[in-house]
Amino acid sequence: MDNRPIGFLDSGVGGLTVVRELKRQLPHESVVYIGDSARAPYGPRPAEQIREYTWQLVRFLLTKNVKMIVIACNTATAVVWEEIKEALDIPVLGVVLPGSSAAIKSSQSGKIGVIGTPMTIASNIYEQKIKRLAPQMAVLSLACPRFAPIVESNEIKSSVAKKIVYESMAPLVGKVDTLVLGCTHYPLLRPIIQNVMGPSVKLIDSGAETVRDVSVLLNYFEINRSREVEDKTEEYYTTASVRGFKEIADQWLGEAVTVQHVDLDKELEND
Amino acid sequence: MDNRPIGFLDSGVGGLTVVRELKRQLPHESVVYIGDSARAPYGPRPAEQIREYTWQLVRFLLTKNVKMIVIACNTATAVVWEEIKEALDIPVLGVVLPGSSAAIKSSQSGKIGVIGTPMTIASNIYEQKIKRLAPQMAVLSLACPRFAPIVESNEIKSSVAKKIVYESMAPLVGKVDTLVLGCTHYPLLRPIIQNVMGPSVKLIDSGAETVRDVSVLLNYFEINRSREVEDKTEEYYTTASVRGFKEIADQWLGEAVTVQHVDLDKELEND
Repeated sequence: MDNRPIGFLDSGVGGLTVVRELKRQLPHESVVYIGDSARAPYGPRPAEQIREYTWQLVRFLLTKNVKMIVIACNTATAVVWEEIKEALDIPVLGVVLPGSSAAIKSSQSGKIGVIGTPMTIASNIYEQKIKRLAPQMAVLSLACPRFAPIVESNEIKSSVAKKIVYESMAPLVGKVDTLVLGCTHYPLLRPIIQNVMGPSVKLIDSGAETVRDVSVLLNYFEINRSREVEDKTEEYYTTASVRGFKEIADQWLGEAVTVQHVDLDKELEND
Repeated sequence: MDNRPIGFLDSGVGGLTVVRELKRQLPHESVVYIGDSARAPYGPRPAEQIREYTWQLVRFLLTKNVKMIVIACNTATAVVWEEIKEALDIPVLGVVLPGSSAAIKSSQSGKIGVIGTPMTIASNIYEQKIKRLAPQMAVLSLACPRFAPIVESNEIKSSVAKKIVYESMAPLVGKVDTLVLGCTHYPLLRPIIQNVMGPSVKLIDSGAETVRDVSVLLNYFEINRSREVEDKTEEYYTTASVRGFKEIADQWLGEAVTVQHVDLDKELEND
């Protein structure tokens, strides 16, 4: 038993899709979330910078005494998950393996699509993981650089969003039976993506899959929190404006949450 | 990636229900199975003896170079899972936590039934685990000492089996909405148990739940086997007669498997 919170990090608001799933599957667990919206999106940045930023978010979460860290960002997972997992003595989960594993189980045709940020797609991490587990699968990858910014600016219901999604995804339509949403921002665009791909295509929400793994690892390491929800805590931090983050968080999580601004350089200077 | 087999141990044939589930969910993984049918059932034995026997099975599996061990026996899990997990440097799974966790998720009424061997029920392990995770749940436990012997002697389709199950389970009928099959032998009696309890009661197969956890831990520790099934291996060992074990194994796994007799004392004497 361990009543400390689970830490989530993301380049911005995308990881909230993972938290929403956590609140559904494990509503009694406490949460600390840090979104680096001031520097989002991570996707187009060089690997070394993504590594440095992600480590800052990890160090911030460690100051909050978390019992587990979920790297709720595909880009950060692609670049630095293994290194962080090796370095820390608490469990560290990424979102790529759970998504890959679910896609393999789902696909009948053996043709899996993956959409993600430019860095996630360039890293080829989904294709690598999927093909290592299931060499017979064909993976069609597509970078969608404009999706995460639409979500960060909360334009997901605009006609521009619809147009961008339709145009971007055209190369995958009709070619796969399973599509991995390889960026935690993308479930916010899910209805549009499902429309483009058609109802028979199974969308894999890598964040939701990750929460199933969180549950198993809490059991395995015996660090569940007691299901007495009264005194559980939820803390949300953003490196950008509280208002923008809160607008999306309230909407996505379906309740009013308290969001605090954090200046990482200041917060970590004595660390 | 790790192409070594997963090791399963049980007091007898019950753990085959876990292997069947593994073959369904993860058909590419290699298997080494040891069933201690010569000394089954473990349920009525004293804890110290169960501890000693289980450690022998673990040592046997280690001689087979397994990458993970599944204690596919609730009784052994109740007595010695934590000790074995601490002692080994490969992942060791028991069947109790996955079953408890699934029961909590399933129950709407908050009333969960658990059936198991006398030792499992006396250990109170399911009630402890369930109530630690979810204190508001009520757990009704029932020892069913006659079930595992029916399965070991392959009398699951006899009218005697039906009579025994109906009589034994009467105290739980109408009292719970979820029932944990807290012994890996019991899924072989599932149709009868479902009939007694009624169609609205959700039966939790702790073994099947455990395989979901196996899959997650293979991912987390990055020890999956490549999904090239050609050269995968399956080895089944029993401490009792090959014929009796094979009859049940073939029937339950739906294919003819090769079963070898093993004399544990001899096998381990130079260990």
